Amino acid sequence: MTSKPEMTAAEIAKAVAGGKMSALDATEAALARIKQHDGILNSFTDVTAERARAKARAVDADIAAGKDVGPLAGVPFAVKNLFDVAGLPTRAGSKINRDRAPAARDATLIERMEAAGAVLVGALNMGEYAYDFTGENVHDGPSRNPHDTTRMTGGSSGGSGSAVGGALVPIALGSDTNGSIRVPSSFCGIFGLKPTYGRLSRARSFPFVASLDHLGPFARSVADLALAYDAMQGPDAEDSACTTRGLEPTLPLIANPVSDLRIAIAGGYFQKNVFPEAVEAVSRVAKALGATRVVDIPEAARARAAAYVISTTEGASLHLDRLRQRANDFDPAVRDRLIAGAMVPAALVDRAQKFRRWYRAELAKIFKSVDVLIASATPCTAPKLGQVNFNLDGVELPVRANIGIHTQPISFIGLPVVAVPVPLEPLPIGVQIIAAPWREDIALRVAHALEKMGVVSAPAPRGL
Amino acid sequence: MTSKPEMTAAEIAKAVAGGKMSALDATEAALARIKQHDGILNSFTDVTAERARAKARAVDADIAAGKDVGPLAGVPFAVKNLFDVAGLPTRAGSKINRDRAPAARDATLIERMEAAGAVLVGALNMGEYAYDFTGENVHDGPSRNPHDTTRMTGGSSGGSGSAVGGALVPIALGSDTNGSIRVPSSFCGIFGLKPTYGRLSRARSFPFVASLDHLGPFARSVADLALAYDAMQGPDAEDSACTTRGLEPTLPLIANPVSDLRIAIAGGYFQKNVFPEAVEAVSRVAKALGATRVVDIPEAARARAAAYVISTTEGASLHLDRLRQRANDFDPAVRDRLIAGAMVPAALVDRAQKFRRWYRAELAKIFKSVDVLIASATPCTAPKLGQVNFNLDGVELPVRANIGIHTQPISFIGLPVVAVPVPLEPLPIGVQIIAAPWREDIALRVAHALEKMGVVSAPAPRGL
Repeated sequence: MTSKPEMTAAEIAKAVAGGKMSALDATEAALARIKQHDGILNSFTDVTAERARAKARAVDADIAAGKDVGPLAGVPFAVKNLFDVAGLPTRAGSKINRDRAPAARDATLIERMEAAGAVLVGALNMGEYAYDFTGENVHDGPSRNPHDTTRMTGGSSGGSGSAVGGALVPIALGSDTNGSIRVPSSFCGIFGLKPTYGRLSRARSFPFVASLDHLGPFARSVADLALAYDAMQGPDAEDSACTTRGLEPTLPLIANPVSDLRIAIAGGYFQKNVFPEAVEAVSRVAKALGATRVVDIPEAARARAAAYVISTTEGASLHLDRLRQRANDFDPAVRDRLIAGAMVPAALVDRAQKFRRWYRAELAKIFKSVDVLIASATPCTAPKLGQVNFNLDGVELPVRANIGIHTQPISFIGLPVVAVPVPLEPLPIGVQIIAAPWREDIALRVAHALEKMGVVSAPAPRGL
Repeated sequence: MTSKPEMTAAEIAKAVAGGKMSALDATEAALARIKQHDGILNSFTDVTAERARAKARAVDADIAAGKDVGPLAGVPFAVKNLFDVAGLPTRAGSKINRDRAPAARDATLIERMEAAGAVLVGALNMGEYAYDFTGENVHDGPSRNPHDTTRMTGGSSGGSGSAVGGALVPIALGSDTNGSIRVPSSFCGIFGLKPTYGRLSRARSFPFVASLDHLGPFARSVADLALAYDAMQGPDAEDSACTTRGLEPTLPLIANPVSDLRIAIAGGYFQKNVFPEAVEAVSRVAKALGATRVVDIPEAARARAAAYVISTTEGASLHLDRLRQRANDFDPAVRDRLIAGAMVPAALVDRAQKFRRWYRAELAKIFKSVDVLIASATPCTAPKLGQVNFNLDGVELPVRANIGIHTQPISFIGLPVVAVPVPLEPLPIGVQIIAAPWREDIALRVAHALEKMGVVSAPAPRGL
């Protein structure tokens, strides 16, 4: 059996564990596909071919020896280059970090993926220091959208979106501070999970905004998303936010019916500032789920503003020494926002944090009568690479700053979200399936139901 | 039996509960003493005589009816005027807050004191919005030191220090953000307890810096301090920081021997910037306890700087609207510091918070081999009212900003402290008995041992 790009992680793992395909063949197939298409997609910054082959051989040896292999046996995956990969400097999309010493040890999530049998094949392009919604990078060049390579992947996990959307690997890992998993999922037409804040360990990854940073997986099916997520769950003393929740497997739950769930459409703010394709996508999802109730999330615009203020100031604090010493080595667009952030008064941030507590409590009230909220993931399909402005509800606005208009008010309080791809023509677009804290299982269940109904799916990469 | 000013709370409660003195007599004695001396001391801003008499009569009626009365039956007490007292606007030392509606309900700690039988006799003078170390107040005039009425009480709980030091009441409540319980304790020659952050409820009190604010009692004996503290302990859902720890009574423990405790002197930073009287006081306490080990607390100066930065910015956030609308109604010294705080960049505060986590962990390491740390409470005895500068280790420095030089690095991470008065001539001075988080019992035990040895005691108010 030869690995084909359209195979899911679950199919590969089954074939490998069952002896129908070797892990090495699956790995070589991924490496070949990367070689074939990544010259255009530019999703990888490092291909760890030798490491991958060694790991694949070890999996194959375990199988030959009759040992248990994990649920991801032989599944190739790749990680946004802010994850520590032993032997590589963790560049986090920057030029500056390339001068760092190579990482001594893999990030926790890589260790967990590989403990489940998965095979790391490389590190992925991203927006500098994760402060980005476009997937463009001045140092490494932009990652390109697999459905139209003249278009953005979305950021900051652009390489992750491109690699999975282009079917170079079935699973990638990324990070989401204000939307950086959900935006590339939307533009690249794939599934992405931004878990509850504190659910997945961030140990040995390069941070952006500690109180907003989430790591999570991308995949081309809901089952693959759950497979990867389940493999990575569990507390980790090395991430102070990730020390309490134990393993709560979701894969056994995703096929459960959703008829008992109270599903509502996020109204008000979330129905404004959208292009027709976003309206159409939300409408298809809502219709398929029989959702008609519209729930207004109060002060969502302020939530987004507060998320901005917290992000820019915490980011500035993180990068203060680099801004002082190596300002000219930053992406100018990132640098200037961080410098602005370094000047924002703390009294305003303190108010943003107070508002955040209020807003979290308001959402908790809403989740007493709702299990799932539906909202668009991005206001539009993927813009052209280099596109500076777009017209949102009659107002000309910068693209880069406004792609996350509907993701920021959700991650601001750490709610779990599955971004699901609606395969519109000519380009796909994502919808957010939002659940209460710690209820990733519910969001995955709804995503799976939509997938079964054929309403959402990862389209073949027509740009390749 | 007639109540005398030198009676402790424990003696009053015993006499009242035993029918040897009425609660009303104890209350009238306090009211008479306030009338006699508060014209000079200026410690009270409100005397709640009618309320006090009604409460005292209720206690007496309970006793007559054979009902259980609490451990503070008939004990007069007063509170810093940032505690809500039903019927009074909570002024928090300000002019502006006098326009607020009268409080609808007492602060939680007042309710608990009265539930134990204590009788509230009034509200106490304080530095504006608790941003003060002097006890001076431009709106209400300064509270005056009972040992020398030309001198400061210390702030911001100056009226609390003055009222207890002057024996107007045996117990007062105050607040401590950066030293505002320990400083007046030191200058006024009394005992003060700043509990662990989160131990005592702050519900219905006017805040200053939420992450640094502590409420606590003042008294003229350690037993009284423990009595009041025990009456006020216990979780309160209305203060989000005070929801976990249950009642851990300390009064039964204070007479336990201290020979098993590992007691060390805080070295380095804490032995610099002191006048000879502070050195003498620490030396007496250390000698009495047989403590010779000196432990250096790393980066204490940075801890103080970080406490300043967090205080001024959180305070500015709290007062932002008032600064915009009523700048001229502030004490100018408070206003100008808050305006400066409103301009401090958040990136610096974020670094201060990161440092705070590091510093907390460092202190936790120290407390693995130490049970108690000893340090001076103030660098000097009470300065003259209006004194602007003093010379600290050869450097001319502003008094107001530097009185808390040894208290700020301790409250910054919420450690419990009992300030004990060393009755030097001509003026008393305090020493901090610092314990690990949640170990108020240990600090009280050491304070009690020192009291039994006669090394610390509240001197009679010789200025009256």
